[in-house]
Amino acid sequence: MRIAMVGDVIGRPGRAAFAKYTAQLRKEKKVDIVVVNGENSAGGKGITRKALDELLHAGADVVTSGNHIWDKKDVLEFIDQEPFLIRPANYPEGAPGKGWCIYPWRAKNIGVMNLSGRAFMPPMDCPFQKVEDILREMKDKCDILLLDFHAETTSEKMAMGWYLDGRVNAVVGTHTHIQTADERVLPNGTAYITDLGMVGPWDSVLGVKNDIILQKFTTGMPVRFELAGGPNVYSAVILDIDESTNKTTGIERIMIKE
Amino acid sequence: MRIAMVGDVIGRPGRAAFAKYTAQLRKEKKVDIVVVNGENSAGGKGITRKALDELLHAGADVVTSGNHIWDKKDVLEFIDQEPFLIRPANYPEGAPGKGWCIYPWRAKNIGVMNLSGRAFMPPMDCPFQKVEDILREMKDKCDILLLDFHAETTSEKMAMGWYLDGRVNAVVGTHTHIQTADERVLPNGTAYITDLGMVGPWDSVLGVKNDIILQKFTTGMPVRFELAGGPNVYSAVILDIDESTNKTTGIERIMIKE
Amino acid sequence: MRIAMVGDVIGRPGRAAFAKYTAQLRKEKKVDIVVVNGENSAGGKGITRKALDELLHAGADVVTSGNHIWDKKDVLEFIDQEPFLIRPANYPEGAPGKGWCIYPWRAKNIGVMNLSGRAFMPPMDCPFQKVEDILREMKDKCDILLLDFHAETTSEKMAMGWYLDGRVNAVVGTHTHIQTADERVLPNGTAYITDLGMVGPWDSVLGVKNDIILQKFTTGMPVRFELAGGPNVYSAVILDIDESTNKTTGIERIMIKE
Amino acid sequence: MRIAMVGDVIGRPGRAAFAKYTAQLRKEKKVDIVVVNGENSAGGKGITRKALDELLHAGADVVTSGNHIWDKKDVLEFIDQEPFLIRPANYPEGAPGKGWCIYPWRAKNIGVMNLSGRAFMPPMDCPFQKVEDILREMKDKCDILLLDFHAETTSEKMAMGWYLDGRVNAVVGTHTHIQTADERVLPNGTAYITDLGMVGPWDSVLGVKNDIILQKFTTGMPVRFELAGGPNVYSAVILDIDESTNKTTGIERIMIKE
Ligand SMILES: [Fe+2]
Ligand SMILES: [Fe+2]
Ligand SMILES: [Fe+2]
Ligand SMILES: [Fe+2]
Ligand SMILES: [Fe+2]
Ligand SMILES: [Fe+2]
Ligand SMILES: [Fe+2]
Ligand SMILES: [Fe+2]
Repeated sequence: MRIAMVGDVIGRPGRAAFAKYTAQLRKEKKVDIVVVNGENSAGGKGITRKALDELLHAGADVVTSGNHIWDKKDVLEFIDQEPFLIRPANYPEGAPGKGWCIYPWRAKNIGVMNLSGRAFMPPMDCPFQKVEDILREMKDKCDILLLDFHAETTSEKMAMGWYLDGRVNAVVGTHTHIQTADERVLPNGTAYITDLGMVGPWDSVLGVKNDIILQKFTTGMPVRFELAGGPNVYSAVILDIDESTNKTTGIERIMIKE
Repeated sequence: MRIAMVGDVIGRPGRAAFAKYTAQLRKEKKVDIVVVNGENSAGGKGITRKALDELLHAGADVVTSGNHIWDKKDVLEFIDQEPFLIRPANYPEGAPGKGWCIYPWRAKNIGVMNLSGRAFMPPMDCPFQKVEDILREMKDKCDILLLDFHAETTSEKMAMGWYLDGRVNAVVGTHTHIQTADERVLPNGTAYITDLGMVGPWDSVLGVKNDIILQKFTTGMPVRFELAGGPNVYSAVILDIDESTNKTTGIERIMIKE
Repeated sequence: MRIAMVGDVIGRPGRAAFAKYTAQLRKEKKVDIVVVNGENSAGGKGITRKALDELLHAGADVVTSGNHIWDKKDVLEFIDQEPFLIRPANYPEGAPGKGWCIYPWRAKNIGVMNLSGRAFMPPMDCPFQKVEDILREMKDKCDILLLDFHAETTSEKMAMGWYLDGRVNAVVGTHTHIQTADERVLPNGTAYITDLGMVGPWDSVLGVKNDIILQKFTTGMPVRFELAGGPNVYSAVILDIDESTNKTTGIERIMIKE
Repeated sequence: MRIAMVGDVIGRPGRAAFAKYTAQLRKEKKVDIVVVNGENSAGGKGITRKALDELLHAGADVVTSGNHIWDKKDVLEFIDQEPFLIRPANYPEGAPGKGWCIYPWRAKNIGVMNLSGRAFMPPMDCPFQKVEDILREMKDKCDILLLDFHAETTSEKMAMGWYLDGRVNAVVGTHTHIQTADERVLPNGTAYITDLGMVGPWDSVLGVKNDIILQKFTTGMPVRFELAGGPNVYSAVILDIDESTNKTTGIERIMIKE
């Protein structure tokens, strides 16, 4: 079986690119299941009913997220009802939503987890401790286990990869919006990439118009973010999983530039 | 002409890999000039006389650096005498060393600049302002201009790429030790990559032994860094520059895994 | 002569308390000049025409500020016209407003400077370097020199106190909204306090309703700030300056609780 | 009964001042119990056998700490054996040492807790959640409850004060080394101060020589910390607790300058 894990989708242009190229991957690359990070899918910050529905209709099976999950208040109205929308599991107990879900596919149960890093990010519960708690609960219920680790630093993400090597099928990073070139299957069988990258405007700073970000950096004054236009990039990986053993056998990096 | 820009070299294993594959690139890829980041070349932190000499003998023409430049006190004894060792230019006025240098190659003057980012990094002078000062001084003296922008976040690095697009031959990021997959020539002719990656132990967390970093993340207690062993990665880009126009015509990403 | 330096005024309740107790201090403590930090004077974030006018009518002679200066867009319409409203001088060249001003009082010129720290704060130009530039320009024009150093950490503020000891009449910290108890005249004659504290709701977290801040800390989710009500605190220092020598002879800490 | 809570003791000069003025307070202010923060008691960073013994012999009943607790490796040899030495309770499960202890005094059990903040500090478990866990365990065993909350920002400390108001006898902040002037008994009976301040060299930056810290701030280069000499400050609060009701009836701020 083949699973695509797709990076942060940025607003309307990102959603359009997601729809177009996900369909293409499903067809040309025989992708069976699609997991995508939707934390920026509504206007570049947060997720709305409309954005989520578009992602799901465009072929997303599971939607993960990150620090921007609460940016649109709207999300509080549906996050608890959506079975396949998850947010970092290491928010405090009692936060709305859930940090993992199980997606059934044919005879397989695909467990998808979402965690946030802590280096240069807001305080959260320890992701290393939390993943142990989750695995204890999920392990016996799942055939396949995937983690979207939403984190800033390469070191925390790489550390998580090694920490889980051999215990899950894949650890993929998100949040920096730039794809890294270090995809590989680690020695004990876990597929890993430091960051998937994003789906959205390619001639931009992480999706936002260049001149706005430059104004922020050069003046130190607040700016109003506005998404860039122009051609998009679509960033993802495709995992190959052996259906008889449930082992990961390969990871292919995908970067489509319009 | 072809210029290789090589990522952070990590200690002894990194220096060995740098020597081996730089020689190979010079030969097989017809590389003329080599710029390499040496901030971690001595034991993983800082640079010493011995580490610098090894880099130079192994084919480095210019050695750039970053926040680890002062980690070995030794450096203060030679940084002011070394014409082709530079450190971030946005340290305060009066800091030892220099932030840019001009390397003569045949009839060409190759200007190499080094700057540090500020997002999630120690306070520094503004890199956007500083690069203007430097360019004012260098522009007329140089045929080719290269920047090693040593920074943590993808947004600050991408912003610098757009800021200088059309004004320099290349902006390459360093510091995160993981190569990004976004190399390209920007619309106005500046070659860009968010991070070159590193040269050093591949089965590691940024060069350091996995279990040490995991101990740090899981216990919150101080650890003693120790470099990993095993196979190395060599991460770089090769720039193609048209000698008649001094324009960048291409950027090729290099990632050699042993 | 006696100069009051007053901490961050918080919104409407802060402005009311500022008016009431500044009048009282002028009368009972024979205060001649009042400098106050207005960065939170409009609704707790930023400053507006209305808030500034209220501060000035209530007896402020000079209004300083800090990182919240741009929070209300309104400020851009008047900051360049207001002679006695200043913002941190270490914003990049070209930022609206100015970082210091000279307030004439009888035969004296009172120079007031405003700088921002960098530890745990947004990137800025070096405040230590910047204050040298300012002093070079102001020194000969002023009889008295005062600095509002808007910074997070005790170490950066204390360092600035020592740095300027003997060169200015006072270095007072702002930004943390809690008054420190370390006021003193340093050995070479500069009056110093790490933080003046604030003027605003006392049963609050830095002016904001307790339960809102607790919600933020315990859930990690975004909250909508709302100012607290109830009794106010008025936090300031009064400097004694010898008019014949222009030397600071004393610093008195003021903390009025309703 | 009267309990003194004393701020971070800085190295040898701090220990000497602690010994001298603690004896004085016990006598002149009728202090019964002394809690002191020892995280900087050995050479300014960490704690050793010798430093701990000196504190205990000088009258400390309970020694709390903070982020510097592990700085001297030595501590790992005795922290598990020392009944009245505690470290922040929100280190991960399994860390050496303990986060709270019960000190018996006459018929009373005095529970002392230690927690670390997270704003601008290394990642830790949530202190608000953790204090609930601790209170569940301690509440029925203790007559008196005290918390040393070792944190950077005024907002996180003030928030903890309100969070625990009415549930513990005192919440005192440490870590910034500068005493705040906001001591009070909160409406529901919890004594509170944002920071106790330190015990150590007064003409210094948080205990360290001025010129060393200024060199760090002005050059951005690493420095070797060295403690300052000269007169000391002794910073503390004294709590009044009614022995019949176990309620806090007062808090007095103590700042002795030599
Ligand atoms: Fe994102
Ligand atoms: Fe994110
Ligand atoms: Fe590095
Ligand atoms: Fe670095
Ligand atoms: Fe403020
Ligand atoms: Fe502020
Ligand atoms: Fe301390
Ligand atoms: Fe501390």
